[in-house]
Amino acid sequence: MKYKAYRKEDLYSYIFGAFPVIELIEAKPELIIEVIISNKYNEIENLVTILESKGINYNIDDKTINRIANKGNIFVVGVFKKVDQTIGDDNHIVLHSPSNMGNLGTIIRTMVGFGLHDLAIIGNSCDIYNPMVTRASMGAFFKVRIEFFNNIHKYLERFKDRKIHPFMLSLKNPLKLVDVNPEGKFSLVFGNEGSGLPDFFEDIGEPIFIPQTDEVDSLNLTMAAGIAMFWFMKEKIG
Amino acid sequence: MKYKAYRKEDLYSYIFGAFPVIELIEAKPELIIEVIISNKYNEIENLVTILESKGINYNIDDKTINRIANKGNIFVVGVFKKVDQTIGDDNHIVLHSPSNMGNLGTIIRTMVGFGLHDLAIIGNSCDIYNPMVTRASMGAFFKVRIEFFNNIHKYLERFKDRKIHPFMLSLKNPLKLVDVNPEGKFSLVFGNEGSGLPDFFEDIGEPIFIPQTDEVDSLNLTMAAGIAMFWFMKEKIG
Repeated sequence: MKYKAYRKEDLYSYIFGAFPVIELIEAKPELIIEVIISNKYNEIENLVTILESKGINYNIDDKTINRIANKGNIFVVGVFKKVDQTIGDDNHIVLHSPSNMGNLGTIIRTMVGFGLHDLAIIGNSCDIYNPMVTRASMGAFFKVRIEFFNNIHKYLERFKDRKIHPFMLSLKNPLKLVDVNPEGKFSLVFGNEGSGLPDFFEDIGEPIFIPQTDEVDSLNLTMAAGIAMFWFMKEKIG
Repeated sequence: MKYKAYRKEDLYSYIFGAFPVIELIEAKPELIIEVIISNKYNEIENLVTILESKGINYNIDDKTINRIANKGNIFVVGVFKKVDQTIGDDNHIVLHSPSNMGNLGTIIRTMVGFGLHDLAIIGNSCDIYNPMVTRASMGAFFKVRIEFFNNIHKYLERFKDRKIHPFMLSLKNPLKLVDVNPEGKFSLVFGNEGSGLPDFFEDIGEPIFIPQTDEVDSLNLTMAAGIAMFWFMKEKIG
């Protein structure tokens, strides 16, 4: 198999870096096609021992690494299968048309940091399998389930028995995050980086806003999502 | 003046994009050397009206924009002077050896969103004037004061009468963020993206940790800083 730089249409993707590859090996070994290791990697022996003990294919092959990740400074690449996933009925993060891959990866890393493992994506999305996503997630990508829904109504049809909280800036009846006392099962819903959530989300569930000064246009998406997750999970972890 | 792609040694820097340039014009017009506008910008007339009313130099000059910002999609560039700044005696964010320019810009944007305007940087730092910082800050860069200190002791000598809170993961006597009742003047101190704060910070002030699962190595720096700012400022804004 001659691997090249990642393309969206490939049936597999890559994760870069020894630490994230270890996360992949621990969380989802069944997805791994192979692990490619650079001759320059300074812990080849340890990594090979792990891979052999788990029966995972590997190659020590600098040419392939250079083709896949031409930026250099990448010594380990995990090649993994893309598979369709289904979210469970626990608490959810819901992203409407996320477009920035780094943001998506950071949100996933933060989700796992706060004990959340189910991500619903509504409408158009950036490519969730792009190595920029897996990389920004620091391997947390393999600890969440991600499912796509054409629109919010399809999502709401399946998940009725829970509190739905769209996060919005301009609300007719603003409920501040600090006045929310989290209880029961919840879905925290966030809009696109540039455009936010469409106005009609104000009539869905119980919208929330995060108080902020009018000196900035808004917090960025990742930050708003992280603060909301912290607020909802703060009594449940640590 | 023939402007080129940004270099750290220049006595001026750039901010890209019409919205951030407007922020610069409103917050710090005295720093502006000139504003460069692309012929392709679709609101030239409005922008020129503002610039002329404020007596700010401008040029409509695509060649210069292409030299400065060769990525395209940039229609307005603000050229501004670098000046030494001094922080005030209000609440502070303190960053120890920050290395990622995008993170630094996002932290600044979040500071302003939560009403914080004084940033101390300790030790080595990425170049705070790099256009990647001003861009990620969305113009909030011009609403904060930033001052450098060689080491934390220099900082502590000058700012004694306040609570110092280093944010750390492994603490002998962990104080959880959710158990902190913010009162009085504070400094929230965060370490480098990769290495965190040196161990001796545990003996400075009142260290805090943000509860998180052991499924991730840590939250990222920007996220930890944003959540901490939210917690300390949540009663004061909005």
